[in-house]
Amino acid sequence: MEAKLTDFKQYLKKMKSYEEAIGLIYWDMRTGAPKKGIAARSEVVGELSGELFKMSVSEEMGSFLDHFTSSGVQSELSDIDRRIVSECKKEYDRSKKIPPKLYQEYVVLTSQAESAWEDAKDQADFPGFQPYLEKIVDMNLQFIDLWGYEGHKYNTLLDAYEPGMTVEKLDQVFGALREQVVPLLSAIQESAHKPEIGFLKQTFDKDKQKKFSLYILEQMGYDFEAGRLDETVHPFATGLNPGDVRITTRYLLNDVNSALFGTIHEGGHALYEQNISMDLLGTPLCSGTSMGIHESQSRFWENMIGRSRPFWNRYFPELQKNYAGQFDKVGVEDFYRATNEVKPSLIRIEADELTYNLHIMVRYEIEKALFSGAVKVADLPEVWNEKYREYLGIVPSHNGEGVLQDVHWSAGMFGYFPSYALGNMYAAQIKRTLEQELGNVNELVREGNLIPIKAWLADKIYQYGKSQTPTEIITRVTGEELNPSYLVDYLRVKYSDIYKL
Amino acid sequence: MEAKLTDFKQYLKKMKSYEEAIGLIYWDMRTGAPKKGIAARSEVVGELSGELFKMSVSEEMGSFLDHFTSSGVQSELSDIDRRIVSECKKEYDRSKKIPPKLYQEYVVLTSQAESAWEDAKDQADFPGFQPYLEKIVDMNLQFIDLWGYEGHKYNTLLDAYEPGMTVEKLDQVFGALREQVVPLLSAIQESAHKPEIGFLKQTFDKDKQKKFSLYILEQMGYDFEAGRLDETVHPFATGLNPGDVRITTRYLLNDVNSALFGTIHEGGHALYEQNISMDLLGTPLCSGTSMGIHESQSRFWENMIGRSRPFWNRYFPELQKNYAGQFDKVGVEDFYRATNEVKPSLIRIEADELTYNLHIMVRYEIEKALFSGAVKVADLPEVWNEKYREYLGIVPSHNGEGVLQDVHWSAGMFGYFPSYALGNMYAAQIKRTLEQELGNVNELVREGNLIPIKAWLADKIYQYGKSQTPTEIITRVTGEELNPSYLVDYLRVKYSDIYKL
Repeated sequence: MEAKLTDFKQYLKKMKSYEEAIGLIYWDMRTGAPKKGIAARSEVVGELSGELFKMSVSEEMGSFLDHFTSSGVQSELSDIDRRIVSECKKEYDRSKKIPPKLYQEYVVLTSQAESAWEDAKDQADFPGFQPYLEKIVDMNLQFIDLWGYEGHKYNTLLDAYEPGMTVEKLDQVFGALREQVVPLLSAIQESAHKPEIGFLKQTFDKDKQKKFSLYILEQMGYDFEAGRLDETVHPFATGLNPGDVRITTRYLLNDVNSALFGTIHEGGHALYEQNISMDLLGTPLCSGTSMGIHESQSRFWENMIGRSRPFWNRYFPELQKNYAGQFDKVGVEDFYRATNEVKPSLIRIEADELTYNLHIMVRYEIEKALFSGAVKVADLPEVWNEKYREYLGIVPSHNGEGVLQDVHWSAGMFGYFPSYALGNMYAAQIKRTLEQELGNVNELVREGNLIPIKAWLADKIYQYGKSQTPTEIITRVTGEELNPSYLVDYLRVKYSDIYKL
Repeated sequence: MEAKLTDFKQYLKKMKSYEEAIGLIYWDMRTGAPKKGIAARSEVVGELSGELFKMSVSEEMGSFLDHFTSSGVQSELSDIDRRIVSECKKEYDRSKKIPPKLYQEYVVLTSQAESAWEDAKDQADFPGFQPYLEKIVDMNLQFIDLWGYEGHKYNTLLDAYEPGMTVEKLDQVFGALREQVVPLLSAIQESAHKPEIGFLKQTFDKDKQKKFSLYILEQMGYDFEAGRLDETVHPFATGLNPGDVRITTRYLLNDVNSALFGTIHEGGHALYEQNISMDLLGTPLCSGTSMGIHESQSRFWENMIGRSRPFWNRYFPELQKNYAGQFDKVGVEDFYRATNEVKPSLIRIEADELTYNLHIMVRYEIEKALFSGAVKVADLPEVWNEKYREYLGIVPSHNGEGVLQDVHWSAGMFGYFPSYALGNMYAAQIKRTLEQELGNVNELVREGNLIPIKAWLADKIYQYGKSQTPTEIITRVTGEELNPSYLVDYLRVKYSDIYKL
């Protein structure tokens, strides 16, 4: 038993090594790999990914799993080891159920679809992308049949990003959220107390932006001996191992906030990955537990800390110093309100904290309808525009800023979008418990005393990695399952104050 | 036949992919990987290297080689394919002849030896390193017996770095070189016309150093779309694939030349790797043919171009502009002479172009004697100091600046050192042909017209990668085998002029 377990863990460690190597190659490709080397480098990724996939579905893996899931043996395993086995088994079953030829076809399709999508988006040409998307949806429906499903077919897709999440649950939480957010948004739009935002849009030196971003990261407790900050077109965080969690941001010269909040957001993801217990190193549990919980951490730090009043009470003077002369005539309250401007917009990734949730609900409704068969791909532009009118009160002038704006569908990532809004809900719920357990959090933030907050999150969430499910984590930490009312309350209180409702 | 060849090449491409991934990981570790991630990253390297080694000695590889070296088949192969097979066969035989247990023992030994060496060097404590070195020499002697040898045992070690090189040949060329260099050095030391070098040692802004380094690289024809320049403690070049050849340099704030010539040196290595024919991509021939030929290119660009008078006639005004105010009172001739100061010194990596060869000869004589049994490890400090007195006229005051100065032996790299001096000889010989074929090279350099030089080298040498041996290359390009007289002539002319001998 011990020997077999050692062999199994050695096998998993090898898989993790491949994953780490692939992760580093991707980081490098995005941050500064010379472009003429990319074609050959992609083949390297192909080789390593192919090997990794083979290992995940090999006969050897199959025999390990048979052994460790057999009745006599399973019960002898430690909780962590049992979780490792079930994680591998889930992956194994998911992969084994797809015939290799079909999977290969899908890989080719999505890689072609991604470049077709880029062109289509540039030219606002939905018909140019439609056949790819139809085929991708079609193949995902085949996959769902092969994988099996309970209740709604879309549940199987959701489960890949947020284990255990269902349409039933999402309908409930998104419904409750929307019911409150839509009237709140109307009230905000009717408010006479709109923030001035002009001073956010001066020209800001890139080095100064970088310096301030690094400063805030350090304040959050981001460990620079276990990470680094680089520049990319699209910000991201990547946890190669807990001792090497890198983040990137993007500097817009005419916007003081874009790089900063991008950094804080990715920094939140990074705090999670940096603080996973070293006991989980080399196992499949050494990563965040789900997209939703991960996003809860990036959004907690970005919005609930970074866009909070106490945060700017503490850090606005530092910002003024950093951009000497540029904010002399701006008050901290003005800055705080500008930073939290709410305004319906067409592009998800530029949306504010409040309306962001509505962008997600549009996508959720559409994905759900696609996989129930209620909507056809051909109808998406119309459905999209109609939903934007209904949820946000505005309509795209062309499909490039509408249904074609996101990359996700071209890569077959259905079921991913809800994670973003789930992250907001988890974050607000966790924040409530944090306040109960840690005392006056606003006071800590006002003092720039962010480390106890990080430490609490590390203790309650980060250290566990994937050894607990999202539901287990949220229930253990907050005492109840996902409950949208915390986010609703948080948003109402915050924005009623800012817009004097 | 065709199908089997395709399979074989696929297999080799996979090996190259692993090599490329490992290469990137090393680059990253040296340029900026967060230190807390290094331990886990080293295990990733271990996994991938282990796989790569297994592939190189697998039964599958064995059966490919049996097939493609069998009499009926070999003759059907193209020249390139035959070379690919023989390259793999050489590696295969070399690895297969060492029992895995012995090799494993050696890996552990050298990794321990490297840290023992670091301590020993710091404390000038040869006895602390001696037992490791004894064991390493011992095991290399065992390897030589297993590999087999012709003539001198040391030939087998030389062959690993410079295929075909022998003690017989090295004795001849180093002898001829030494016979001329030693008296030339004496004459230089007695010359009354010593350059002033004080102005090289001002304080130089790092960003300006970087800017000038990048400018010169661009002048050399280094392709920035196929590479990048970073900063490390020890400069290096790494060719991941011909479209991604990265170099690093080190900035010393009190030395205008260190980073610059480091950059040009590594840039020379990089030009070689960037210009290997894409036809060789994914094969074991897609790299420089030997350490000696590689070093010929770094040294050609560093010394024969970069430290030449026409180069500074062209670029000294640019240097003056780059370091505004710092070289106003310095003439180009003064700068040229200072940059070529000759002075016996104790440390190889700080040596000038002329005495560098003597540092190498000391090491060559010692390695040769170690493997013939004429010298024992215990006697090395004494032998080392004696040779330095004889060749360079100076003696280390302690072993840290003497026999312990280089990392090579702790890593078991015997036979490597001669490559550096071979590089100088190859470079001078190739330069002669270049001048014959390209017309007035000095004139091109004086005009800053370096691209035709790069193009000629790419055409004559770089594109071939490892598809020709060093001897084939030098003979084809220059019409004769390695001949030290070109280096001797070059050094005599250059330094007689500088020192007015």
